[in-house]
Amino acid sequence: MVKTKQLYEGKAKKVYATNEDGVYIVSYKDDATAFNGLKKGTIEGKGSINNRVSNHLMGLLHQSGIPTHFIEELNERETAVRAVQIVPLEVIVRNIAAGSLSKRLGLEEGTKLKTTVLEYCYKNDDLGDPMLNEYHIKAMELATEDELAIISSYSFEINKILSEYLLDLGIELVDFKLEFGRADDGSIILADEISPDTCRFWDSKTKTKLDKDRFRRDLGNVEDAYKEILKRLMGV
Amino acid sequence: MVKTKQLYEGKAKKVYATNEDGVYIVSYKDDATAFNGLKKGTIEGKGSINNRVSNHLMGLLHQSGIPTHFIEELNERETAVRAVQIVPLEVIVRNIAAGSLSKRLGLEEGTKLKTTVLEYCYKNDDLGDPMLNEYHIKAMELATEDELAIISSYSFEINKILSEYLLDLGIELVDFKLEFGRADDGSIILADEISPDTCRFWDSKTKTKLDKDRFRRDLGNVEDAYKEILKRLMGV
Repeated sequence: MVKTKQLYEGKAKKVYATNEDGVYIVSYKDDATAFNGLKKGTIEGKGSINNRVSNHLMGLLHQSGIPTHFIEELNERETAVRAVQIVPLEVIVRNIAAGSLSKRLGLEEGTKLKTTVLEYCYKNDDLGDPMLNEYHIKAMELATEDELAIISSYSFEINKILSEYLLDLGIELVDFKLEFGRADDGSIILADEISPDTCRFWDSKTKTKLDKDRFRRDLGNVEDAYKEILKRLMGV
Repeated sequence: MVKTKQLYEGKAKKVYATNEDGVYIVSYKDDATAFNGLKKGTIEGKGSINNRVSNHLMGLLHQSGIPTHFIEELNERETAVRAVQIVPLEVIVRNIAAGSLSKRLGLEEGTKLKTTVLEYCYKNDDLGDPMLNEYHIKAMELATEDELAIISSYSFEINKILSEYLLDLGIELVDFKLEFGRADDGSIILADEISPDTCRFWDSKTKTKLDKDRFRRDLGNVEDAYKEILKRLMGV
């Protein structure tokens, strides 16, 4: 399989078309951004860690019946995935109040939420990824009602699977962001990545942050946090 | 009935306890504020217009089976209402994109929405009334699932009743804000007000704004707009 054309360059990944029909290659970068691109930097080794962490977790989800875009890890940084049309929504699942939710609703960071919270944001950098509800999504025709029902059902299921799996490794899944895509056959499958860039991982005992918040908030030991997650997941 | 104690002073109304059990008196002020209190002013005669407009529309809704807090208009500015515990949500119903929705989602003001949009905001001035979804409301225990089902069902029904009624008077109901309360028996009833302060009313032919946007955006003829709404509704 060879890359033919770069289709897209995002903040943390590049996506290429390939000589195989319906297959893209995702290439993970070490670049890090936060606050809608206002803060920029590099996290040494992040690309290769996120590639492996994401593929590992997607594999776990696949085993539990969640369809994902993952096909095959090609090398340290690159993975072959099913070509999809991305649904322009960021789906955020929250178990514990942190980050923007804490600030917006005045809930102290670390407060266990009485019920899992699902949020949708409109993937639109120019608008700053504003929060949407299901009525906005319907009115703007960003997804159909059926698609949204599948997306929310998968999201809750993914939360359950990942939370249990990670807790066994001493990691609390505070919140995370998912993106879904439409495959060739119109079905909804999990796309994008699941990594310390897109999840809040806290050490379940010490509550130490093991994710991109170390970069966002200048907490130091950013690379070590990413490595620690890889180590707990893969034993390496 | 006599006022006993002032219970609350808001931006546009005062609420008093009375010597009658379960009855409050609402007194409408001429004070106008916008942008969460950052802009302040007075709209001559607004209190008395909003009192009459709101009571008229609440009466119409009552006839159509929507329970409201309205009991009796006492004088130009004052109305007796059922005492309720306010559900701390602003329920916004939108038919046409305008105001914060246009800005937030990049939809041109005046765009007819493909489906009616319902939004919830957390009534909390310190936080700037942030938008919530049903999961946040459940997690924060602001309303029960049953209450929310009733609130959303009433809101869509109110939209239908008011939109049709106003269109006959040459007024387009662009969007509006509702508040609900819990009555003594725990039932959900419509509270607060329905007025040019809380609705966007456009002349259906000329699209002239006949509401508080004239104050918010310094469009002039603010008092005339409020008077025009009263005239179309009451013929006075």
